[in-house]
Amino acid sequence: MKKFQQKHLLGTENLSKEELLDIIETAKKFKDLINKGHDRIATLEGKIVVLMFFEPSTRTRSSFEIAAKRLGASTIDFSSIKSSATKGETLIDTAKNLEAMQPDVFVIRHSNSGTPYLLSKIQNIPIINAGDGFHEHPSQALLDLMTILEHKPHIEKQKVLIVGDIAHSRVARSNIYSLKTMGADVAVCGPATMLPPEINKLGVKVYTELDKALPNYDVVMMLRIQAERGSINNQFPSLREYSRFWGLKDKSKPLMKPDVLIMHPGPMNRGVEISQSVADSERSVILPQVTNGVAIRMSLLHKVCNGKSIEEVI
Amino acid sequence: MKKFQQKHLLGTENLSKEELLDIIETAKKFKDLINKGHDRIATLEGKIVVLMFFEPSTRTRSSFEIAAKRLGASTIDFSSIKSSATKGETLIDTAKNLEAMQPDVFVIRHSNSGTPYLLSKIQNIPIINAGDGFHEHPSQALLDLMTILEHKPHIEKQKVLIVGDIAHSRVARSNIYSLKTMGADVAVCGPATMLPPEINKLGVKVYTELDKALPNYDVVMMLRIQAERGSINNQFPSLREYSRFWGLKDKSKPLMKPDVLIMHPGPMNRGVEISQSVADSERSVILPQVTNGVAIRMSLLHKVCNGKSIEEVI
Amino acid sequence: MKKFQQKHLLGTENLSKEELLDIIETAKKFKDLINKGHDRIATLEGKIVVLMFFEPSTRTRSSFEIAAKRLGASTIDFSSIKSSATKGETLIDTAKNLEAMQPDVFVIRHSNSGTPYLLSKIQNIPIINAGDGFHEHPSQALLDLMTILEHKPHIEKQKVLIVGDIAHSRVARSNIYSLKTMGADVAVCGPATMLPPEINKLGVKVYTELDKALPNYDVVMMLRIQAERGSINNQFPSLREYSRFWGLKDKSKPLMKPDVLIMHPGPMNRGVEISQSVADSERSVILPQVTNGVAIRMSLLHKVCNGKSIEEVI
Repeated sequence: MKKFQQKHLLGTENLSKEELLDIIETAKKFKDLINKGHDRIATLEGKIVVLMFFEPSTRTRSSFEIAAKRLGASTIDFSSIKSSATKGETLIDTAKNLEAMQPDVFVIRHSNSGTPYLLSKIQNIPIINAGDGFHEHPSQALLDLMTILEHKPHIEKQKVLIVGDIAHSRVARSNIYSLKTMGADVAVCGPATMLPPEINKLGVKVYTELDKALPNYDVVMMLRIQAERGSINNQFPSLREYSRFWGLKDKSKPLMKPDVLIMHPGPMNRGVEISQSVADSERSVILPQVTNGVAIRMSLLHKVCNGKSIEEVI
Repeated sequence: MKKFQQKHLLGTENLSKEELLDIIETAKKFKDLINKGHDRIATLEGKIVVLMFFEPSTRTRSSFEIAAKRLGASTIDFSSIKSSATKGETLIDTAKNLEAMQPDVFVIRHSNSGTPYLLSKIQNIPIINAGDGFHEHPSQALLDLMTILEHKPHIEKQKVLIVGDIAHSRVARSNIYSLKTMGADVAVCGPATMLPPEINKLGVKVYTELDKALPNYDVVMMLRIQAERGSINNQFPSLREYSRFWGLKDKSKPLMKPDVLIMHPGPMNRGVEISQSVADSERSVILPQVTNGVAIRMSLLHKVCNGKSIEEVI
Repeated sequence: MKKFQQKHLLGTENLSKEELLDIIETAKKFKDLINKGHDRIATLEGKIVVLMFFEPSTRTRSSFEIAAKRLGASTIDFSSIKSSATKGETLIDTAKNLEAMQPDVFVIRHSNSGTPYLLSKIQNIPIINAGDGFHEHPSQALLDLMTILEHKPHIEKQKVLIVGDIAHSRVARSNIYSLKTMGADVAVCGPATMLPPEINKLGVKVYTELDKALPNYDVVMMLRIQAERGSINNQFPSLREYSRFWGLKDKSKPLMKPDVLIMHPGPMNRGVEISQSVADSERSVILPQVTNGVAIRMSLLHKVCNGKSIEEVI
């Protein structure tokens, strides 16, 4: 099996099926060890992970931070609020300066699509994309794939529906790439204003009515309405209307397959894209997604930093 | 002796004398080891402590952080400023998501009374209350008790006076519970507007004139005027007036017992509730309180996380 | 050779040639070990470094944080934004409280000149000055000296030119002290409004025209225009004019010695005090300065905290 040996993780677009599975297999090893009580699997002892989050983030930053610490690495939190940007320094100079301090990896989130790619061209240390603009969020797609595989191992026979603001979602984009690569049948659903013009090129089916789509799908992945990115007021009349037509709620339950998986990348707007009872239903794997997130990020950090072998350190 | 074996530390209200003493005894062990040069007593090696401070805090957050690190644990700093709250997520979802990342303990401060209790009902990991609204601040009361016991071992014969904004002080409330449990004689003193209506039910004596109270007490605990909680302008005419009637100052010295202990939880407003010369006098144990705070928090983290035995790791 | 054995590092003004060289020699050892793959040289295992940055800082704070972590120490980040200052506490009380938590060293940056000196008078733990107002920034001068010595070992024969806002630059001041102590020939250059009145007393040559100065110097150290300290609009008509007369640019290249060293403490204002092509030229040692910064800070932390011997821990 061809292992993941790329220097950077910039997106899922260029990952092969073998590479996706290799990352997930290592994540599973870490997850199993943690569940057996191994708090610390120090394959990255002494390494330094720089967290460069230029957008506010709770779960992704914390997930990478916990992943790094479980691997024995130190983290340097470089959030925009403290940054030299206020002193007029360019992003490239900031990054080159941090690189000159000889850390081992950059984990970067930035509101501009392509920022991690840009940095990868001018730097020598590995870069992990933790979300760039409307482009990609590959660690999210990997944890989603890991979660689906735990419940639906025959991914190539599965039908996955992604619902919401497809046009502005890096989560949707990264998931479409990885799920298509794995052979899944992928569809998207949302108001016409939230579907990107080039959507057909991605090889996905398109729905604008949720109720018509739901009965056919094994996995339903809800996206959050990203109010802070200006979705509201521009693309649909009101949150209530959005919820009525594209939210997953009690009324949606009988329409779905009995063994459907319900996913959400969080943070949820309860009562908007997903109702209380659906979010907390037994078909929801929203919290297991979060748990898998730490394992996936451990796997990614371990791989791009060339950690010691797991067997050696436990 | 019945040891402290509760899952959470939500307050001092439900702690028995034995439990209080058990926590303090372990804290003393840690304090002694630190003073002998043991920087690190790694009973929590590999554990992850999440610091959830939804109110600004210097000393309590730093104290818990140092305590965690001395125990060999990692900390994840989750301050409100970076939080998903800005993305519309509920506190419960935020907490459940962090829990899904499998940390070992939450240390939480929140402006709403009862938040740690609420979380303890819906989560499986231990919760330490680092201050909730006007309710409790149990680690403060424990460090205060530890400090008093160092100077006045026969606590049941001691008379303790708490001075200031009793109605809005979680420090006062937690101290009243623990000191009463220990058998001390507790009184409160402050302007009538700062005394809670139900104060008598707590079994404490009430004074409104400081000068009348001072001669009788072995311990005088000053509370800070919490300007940021709106005490000023509502409850007394001016800071100068407050200082004149309820502040501890040079003129107060001859009124107090010669071996009185003067305490303050900090941060102090010098010149308001306590004068320069009193704060820095030889009867003040304000800085020893801070030192004991780290030891108490080490003890609490060690106990709720079921750390390895101290003897095993030093 | 007289080693550096001072308790604090407050400035370079009082460091002898032997002390400067001793700090740099230890830094070189750390640098060599890191380059040989030693991520962690844990001479400060279990120690606690408090980072007190009361001014925004990226590179200096990150550099100290990485240095501390490479030495096996923990860091407590105490930035002003989270501080008790908002609760009306004095700096001295804040510092005394943090000290009572028994950390091992304070690294402090403050906008008021003399703050680290003030704290050193009232505290018992070592203090490293990470920049105080217009006064000193000794770790910067030490990394600059280390970088110069790597290229020009015979420092006493070297001529160093410092260009920019000399009057408001703690970098200039600390460099003038250390370079003079080492026997170098130091000059400053800038608009008359940016030269301090007492500049002659420091024993440096003074230029107001950059083009006249450049041909004579072996090292050209550009300072950044510190817009956030109010240099602009008061001391020169416009950034464009500043750049034209005192910026280092393509036209400056033929004026300089072929083996000149070009330095900048960062963050750079590209196109203002230094042009793109000069900043990235092969005579620039701007990024090596940053790399040396981590090594110098490791050396300083190691020395003031009395770390274990390097040989013992690798």
